[in-house]
Amino acid sequence: MNTAVRQPYAKGVRRTEEILSATREMLIHEGAEALTMRRVAAKLDMSLSNLQHYFTTKETLINALVDAQYEDYVAGLDERVEPGQTPEEQLGAFAQYISDDYQTDEGSILIWELWAFTGRNAYVADTVNKAHESERRIVRKIIGQISPNDSKSQLETKATVITSMFEGVGLFVAPGRPQAKSRKAVTEQLKAAAIAIARA
Amino acid sequence: MNTAVRQPYAKGVRRTEEILSATREMLIHEGAEALTMRRVAAKLDMSLSNLQHYFTTKETLINALVDAQYEDYVAGLDERVEPGQTPEEQLGAFAQYISDDYQTDEGSILIWELWAFTGRNAYVADTVNKAHESERRIVRKIIGQISPNDSKSQLETKATVITSMFEGVGLFVAPGRPQAKSRKAVTEQLKAAAIAIARA
Repeated sequence: MNTAVRQPYAKGVRRTEEILSATREMLIHEGAEALTMRRVAAKLDMSLSNLQHYFTTKETLINALVDAQYEDYVAGLDERVEPGQTPEEQLGAFAQYISDDYQTDEGSILIWELWAFTGRNAYVADTVNKAHESERRIVRKIIGQISPNDSKSQLETKATVITSMFEGVGLFVAPGRPQAKSRKAVTEQLKAAAIAIARA
Repeated sequence: MNTAVRQPYAKGVRRTEEILSATREMLIHEGAEALTMRRVAAKLDMSLSNLQHYFTTKETLINALVDAQYEDYVAGLDERVEPGQTPEEQLGAFAQYISDDYQTDEGSILIWELWAFTGRNAYVADTVNKAHESERRIVRKIIGQISPNDSKSQLETKATVITSMFEGVGLFVAPGRPQAKSRKAVTEQLKAAAIAIARA
């Protein structure tokens, strides 16, 4: 085992993770207004040029953060939505997962910050769009089993509105939001609504 | 008519509108990162202290912008959703209105910027929460006519998930978003889904 080769690589991965983590914290606690390459570097006791060695611009950094967040999100989803479940159970597990995810800062505050970036930067928008498309495709696959006679385009639009509902519900059930106290009932309604849309 | 009294008042209103408009433009085209009181003042050839006479801090300015945006939004909604329509038609008109609104920069980019602010500032969050609650109450009132036997809490949670769907769908149908080309079909599905949830 050639540790002389492996170590610099591992160090680079660790450093990249530290940079993403610092960026995530800064976005959650201070918002996009406070986020500059210089401040991220300072937080990690790095020089700006060393940070730029990992991420040339703030946009590439944000883009990598979007990728990392949605990768974590899909990994978490894969754990909850399993092939052994009925499609209705899968849809329910997805709704529960998203409702739980909104209870974290990463799943609420950070996600809204990243959505705002999509209006400012086409590169970030493209990455977020791809992530939403992946999410929508998972929904489409599940509801195709619930309504096997639906046309492809019917399944596409149903999957869009179900995914929209999943994306929008955080505005109501995340901590401090108007329906946070009714989260349990809202989550059950979310599951029932997703199934009703799939069957309609 | 005492124009000596009226004019300063009118001037103040006009100035306030100019400030909100400049803030709106800056958020849409440059994002929260670029928004400072100093830059808003400069854009309007005002001194910073004069701007602060209207809005003491950036947070009060953003808050006033949230208020103005949602006031415009509800006014537009009132024009589309009319008492003479059946509740299903009202729900459909609401879905159509929101889908159309996402075609504007104010209804998409600006709204996402304002959502991001809610994670940074409790005052702005409170104003956005109130606006979302107003929207949800309009939906609840409509669906109460569709499912008159539902309990109050059932109507509450149904209204939450329908409103969530309306809020989230912009991520898919706004210009440049993955389902922008299928907006018409998605909007029809949105109407059908809202009715299916109300009846479920």
